[in-house]
Amino acid sequence: MVKYTKANSEGELLERVRRQVSVPRGAGLVLGMGDDCAVFRPRGAAGDLLFTTDMLIEDTHFTRRTHSAADVGWKALARGLSDIAAMGGEPRFCLLSLSVAPWTDARWVDGFYAGFLRLARRERVPLAGGDLAHGALLMCDVMVAGAVPRGRALRRDGARAGDAIYVSGRLGGSALGLAEGRGRAWRKHVRPEPRLALGRFARERLHATAAMDLSDGLSLDLYRMCVASHLAAEIAEPLRYPGATLEQALDGGEDYELLFTLPAGALAPTEFDGVPLTRIGAMRKGRAGLVELNGAPLPPRGYDHLRGTGAGRWGGARK
Amino acid sequence: MVKYTKANSEGELLERVRRQVSVPRGAGLVLGMGDDCAVFRPRGAAGDLLFTTDMLIEDTHFTRRTHSAADVGWKALARGLSDIAAMGGEPRFCLLSLSVAPWTDARWVDGFYAGFLRLARRERVPLAGGDLAHGALLMCDVMVAGAVPRGRALRRDGARAGDAIYVSGRLGGSALGLAEGRGRAWRKHVRPEPRLALGRFARERLHATAAMDLSDGLSLDLYRMCVASHLAAEIAEPLRYPGATLEQALDGGEDYELLFTLPAGALAPTEFDGVPLTRIGAMRKGRAGLVELNGAPLPPRGYDHLRGTGAGRWGGARK
Repeated sequence: MVKYTKANSEGELLERVRRQVSVPRGAGLVLGMGDDCAVFRPRGAAGDLLFTTDMLIEDTHFTRRTHSAADVGWKALARGLSDIAAMGGEPRFCLLSLSVAPWTDARWVDGFYAGFLRLARRERVPLAGGDLAHGALLMCDVMVAGAVPRGRALRRDGARAGDAIYVSGRLGGSALGLAEGRGRAWRKHVRPEPRLALGRFARERLHATAAMDLSDGLSLDLYRMCVASHLAAEIAEPLRYPGATLEQALDGGEDYELLFTLPAGALAPTEFDGVPLTRIGAMRKGRAGLVELNGAPLPPRGYDHLRGTGAGRWGGARK
Repeated sequence: MVKYTKANSEGELLERVRRQVSVPRGAGLVLGMGDDCAVFRPRGAAGDLLFTTDMLIEDTHFTRRTHSAADVGWKALARGLSDIAAMGGEPRFCLLSLSVAPWTDARWVDGFYAGFLRLARRERVPLAGGDLAHGALLMCDVMVAGAVPRGRALRRDGARAGDAIYVSGRLGGSALGLAEGRGRAWRKHVRPEPRLALGRFARERLHATAAMDLSDGLSLDLYRMCVASHLAAEIAEPLRYPGATLEQALDGGEDYELLFTLPAGALAPTEFDGVPLTRIGAMRKGRAGLVELNGAPLPPRGYDHLRGTGAGRWGGARK
């Protein structure tokens, strides 16, 4: 789901839109634009519902030459599940919009659904519907709905000064895989593992104060958490995926690990289900969004989904 | 949202997928693939929730030369609202995934959101989030969530033999508008009006037994309702939009009027909010999906979203 920040063109567009959105009283919308998921509270229900959508587009997020149909199907769903994990939720169902291209044959479509439904079955998230179309290139958009106890969704605006900052896993593997195009890192790039159990553990047992998933790179995502929580952050280097450069670990997207904060005194285990949990620093008072790595400012260099497009350039075109 | 039928390549694909989907017990999914919306029942909630997604793709559903940005934004949301109307629901919130193209500038994006948010405000359906990306062409996918009293969603499988078949409005206007490219019919094509109040009226006051929206043409959509309800249908010609041919009225897509059935004895008013309601025939026992117009079989010729694409040809490629 879309991340909101002023640091990038995407953030600027979203802030412009957000100012124009009016939420009717009693609409049940607990949290709207700006987090990993929207949070909706059905009348009379015991819990809250989470909603997220994520697109996967040919020649932007994948190419048919390098990515198998099953990889594309898996990843299309994994991205949304990662957003549910980031809020500490459990997935409930999903919708899939798929637009096929002139080159797409029945075999490709079968492979796509095989990858998609394999992950869906494992995570017990039934495909409840969607839309089909065709166009000049292949693209899909997946909506995942999840559930979380009332008022307990992990948001990115909940961190407090003094909270410890944690990340799961070893960062930069996806960027390394994309650069190498093969091997274990490549598999990490095409078959990300949504951290659903870890997200629930962070909410229920660790009492995390804030969380989000690392979809666009630690430097940009931590910046976003800091902006949302009106805080600065001081960190050391995160654990790196074997072979990944520091830049890949800091600015590389699509690791789909979790970034979360714990109250100052809390202690997380060093690993969960075989995935390392590393304390990389702490939140502190200061300029909202300022992130310092070993004492020096770390600019938010992660992936901007509109950078370089006309839609991202608001300066001159702005009325 | 996707329509499921065996009569077309889209229907064949969806049936293949549907066989592979497993719905866990207690998942809360009341109705999955195959209707205008999925129906989900949150634990403890007083009502059911409706979910639908619809794509709008450059050079498939619109062209930038003929459609204004605001038209595209309006229609992107109107299609999902029409699905909520078809189930007799009230919209609650929406998510928007937007992928911009190299030609898309900030002015176009502003126009798009202006059209989208104008309809969203009128129908009190707040934009709660979504996704942003870029690709070789512009496309968007809109998810609309709605609400309906528990167990009361109007489905397409609820019609009974003897039920009267009604349609709202005058059909063929959208197809005529697309052919003419201007005038009142064109406006009907680019600014469809979701029949939300009528959908609720049909559910609450008329006690409709089944309903769906006319997105792909009466001949195909009525066929789908008949298949879902295991019935045949006998109809006369529907009211035609002024200037529309009989073929446009029967097979033309995107009118977004409502098709619904009422118990044999029930009487609908001749109009609702200025929109004519016409009894065009009756459901009867017979071969499921057989539709007869003035006594002669009417083939389901409406719009197939995959026809002509490789993904729609399953014959040879089928394992």
